[in-house]
Amino acid sequence: MARRARPIITLLTDFGAADPYVAAMKGTILEVCPVAEIVDISHEIPPHDILSAAFVLANAAPAFPEGTAHVVVVDPGVGTGRDILVGQYGGQHYIFPDNGVITFIKEVLPLEGLVAVRNLRSLGFEQVSHTFHGRDIMAPLAASLAMGMDPGELGPTPARYKLLDLPLPESDETGMIGRILYVDHFGNLISNIQEADIRSRFKDRSSVRVACNGQTIGAIHETYGQASLGQAVALINSMGLLEVAVCQGRAADALGAGVGAEITVCQQQYLEG
Amino acid sequence: MARRARPIITLLTDFGAADPYVAAMKGTILEVCPVAEIVDISHEIPPHDILSAAFVLANAAPAFPEGTAHVVVVDPGVGTGRDILVGQYGGQHYIFPDNGVITFIKEVLPLEGLVAVRNLRSLGFEQVSHTFHGRDIMAPLAASLAMGMDPGELGPTPARYKLLDLPLPESDETGMIGRILYVDHFGNLISNIQEADIRSRFKDRSSVRVACNGQTIGAIHETYGQASLGQAVALINSMGLLEVAVCQGRAADALGAGVGAEITVCQQQYLEG
Amino acid sequence: MARRARPIITLLTDFGAADPYVAAMKGTILEVCPVAEIVDISHEIPPHDILSAAFVLANAAPAFPEGTAHVVVVDPGVGTGRDILVGQYGGQHYIFPDNGVITFIKEVLPLEGLVAVRNLRSLGFEQVSHTFHGRDIMAPLAASLAMGMDPGELGPTPARYKLLDLPLPESDETGMIGRILYVDHFGNLISNIQEADIRSRFKDRSSVRVACNGQTIGAIHETYGQASLGQAVALINSMGLLEVAVCQGRAADALGAGVGAEITVCQQQYLEG
Repeated sequence: MARRARPIITLLTDFGAADPYVAAMKGTILEVCPVAEIVDISHEIPPHDILSAAFVLANAAPAFPEGTAHVVVVDPGVGTGRDILVGQYGGQHYIFPDNGVITFIKEVLPLEGLVAVRNLRSLGFEQVSHTFHGRDIMAPLAASLAMGMDPGELGPTPARYKLLDLPLPESDETGMIGRILYVDHFGNLISNIQEADIRSRFKDRSSVRVACNGQTIGAIHETYGQASLGQAVALINSMGLLEVAVCQGRAADALGAGVGAEITVCQQQYLEG
Repeated sequence: MARRARPIITLLTDFGAADPYVAAMKGTILEVCPVAEIVDISHEIPPHDILSAAFVLANAAPAFPEGTAHVVVVDPGVGTGRDILVGQYGGQHYIFPDNGVITFIKEVLPLEGLVAVRNLRSLGFEQVSHTFHGRDIMAPLAASLAMGMDPGELGPTPARYKLLDLPLPESDETGMIGRILYVDHFGNLISNIQEADIRSRFKDRSSVRVACNGQTIGAIHETYGQASLGQAVALINSMGLLEVAVCQGRAADALGAGVGAEITVCQQQYLEG
Repeated sequence: MARRARPIITLLTDFGAADPYVAAMKGTILEVCPVAEIVDISHEIPPHDILSAAFVLANAAPAFPEGTAHVVVVDPGVGTGRDILVGQYGGQHYIFPDNGVITFIKEVLPLEGLVAVRNLRSLGFEQVSHTFHGRDIMAPLAASLAMGMDPGELGPTPARYKLLDLPLPESDETGMIGRILYVDHFGNLISNIQEADIRSRFKDRSSVRVACNGQTIGAIHETYGQASLGQAVALINSMGLLEVAVCQGRAADALGAGVGAEITVCQQQYLEG
């Protein structure tokens, strides 16, 4: 894998911003790899929320250059038998607990060179706490990979690894039914229906209508500002996913909808009411 | 403009810290300009609050070195007809949507070399979403400017650009009336009255008294700790603006005041009550 | 002290993430020391909460490399007579207001080369506000130290400096009584009882039982996931301190306990009830 003068290491955790935990990981990385460029993806994943972490990871990671190492510490099973895994995808490293947080990356393609991290002592990791593998294993590991360590030394290739069991969009004669996957900071409702799904299901996108949580939203527009202030609008967002927003408002509040809510796409003539 | 070995690019958004949006911008910047030094100004501007963003920008930017590029993505009009502008002030670049977010920078002096960003295709920006110009236009643009791109190529000089229509402090025979512009994390009430305004209006600052939201605060002190615990105090803050604080408390709560509240400065003898 | 190609400067404040204050410090640092690597420890210390800041500092700082300069701006006394101090410990610089924020660092060993920062004018700091010494004194000072400035020039060695007056764990014939020092983002209750205290007080850790806020927790486990979902668990955390957690829940809420709550460790036979 190509190495940069300043290798990038990203951090994605549910640690919040108040405590010493994130800084302890950063100090550890800079001790092992003084030239590392550390970038926060997010530390505001809701505690133990693997689905949110998986979603954020998959939508931030592709923007980073080849060679970036992504460290994910949303890890309710820390210190138990769950493995820490290291693998590559798209020329980037992923270091993560085996709990499904890789789901949306893995959807596209299998990870290359996947190994379970087991040979901690042979790697010189002597002092490993039972409760903070982010600082004691994953941070120094990412820094060592950035310094050129061969991941092959870390341990065996696992026979299988966990993926989240998520609902896929369903299609019937009238249209498609999906689910809200993620609610963002603006209260936008982001679904599991991809633009490509809509394109292959419907010949004419202009005659398609969207409903969410039982409420009609309307046609698929291009951007937020095409609706009037406070009006709900459906659009394909910057991740290529169908999203419901409210112009300068919060769709989650306006529609009383959250993760898991139903979203439907159908031809105008099938619209209820 | 002078170039640094590690050009600084700052980010100011209303994206919050949880979602993948800020990281997607950072990854994009590091892809285009691997040596960029990215600094967060804030991502906690209240959603779509252009006034807050304008205030924070103007009070953070001057502390940065010459050559810094400031990227502002508080942009409720993303994807509509509003322009993205690029201009220079004080040896720094500003990249921002034409919505008034530049108001407090512009107050002092016109921006130099202002252009509207229109030639996206000629710049090699092929894939531009309708909903995330921060990632698709402004981040790569800032990185390209940091790499030495000539902003003149970007598009035409706009005939006019938006400024927020804000109240200015008023003066009458008894004193001055201003407005609260910003409430900070400590609940401090920051006004639009500058130290220079007070200096030119009143010969003797020691006899001047401040009131806010109808409540008498008292004389202008030098710092928070000059009041007793829980007591309100008026002072000139580190931005040179008249501020009302409560010693180790929250003035916004104690006075029930927020953005837009009235603040008055007068000679002691004109104080009501 | 060893110098790095990119000297690390950490920031720990109660400024929050919304306002221009943190960015103003960063811009100032990069103006004085263009090669500085700035790392945020936290800006979410509750306003004016010196104990929390002291705890976070002591648990993040040791992870950083030698030569790191830690800047602490939790400073309710800004602009009053309190000194700004600079000292070294473990090969790192500490720059902090004399208000006790150094308590947990100082517990272990006296700071070396401690000086009070008084010669501001001789240092070329002409424009110093009364309300933002983080930007006007501490940030440029840290940057100057990173550039190799001799701290000895800053001012005299103070005769004494403040430490927080904190309760220590007490021991009697039945066991130990400590206090909760800090509640983290996960609602974990972190106490002032160190693993070494328990080791020296009890021969057999397996027969020891923990209670907190009057509620029995049980034996000391190794990690969170050893309890069932929603069950309280006592463990030695990654800082070497006795902690009470709830597996994928919030101990602070489940036990109705916060900073100052009592935590006891005793042999099983002394357990009440």
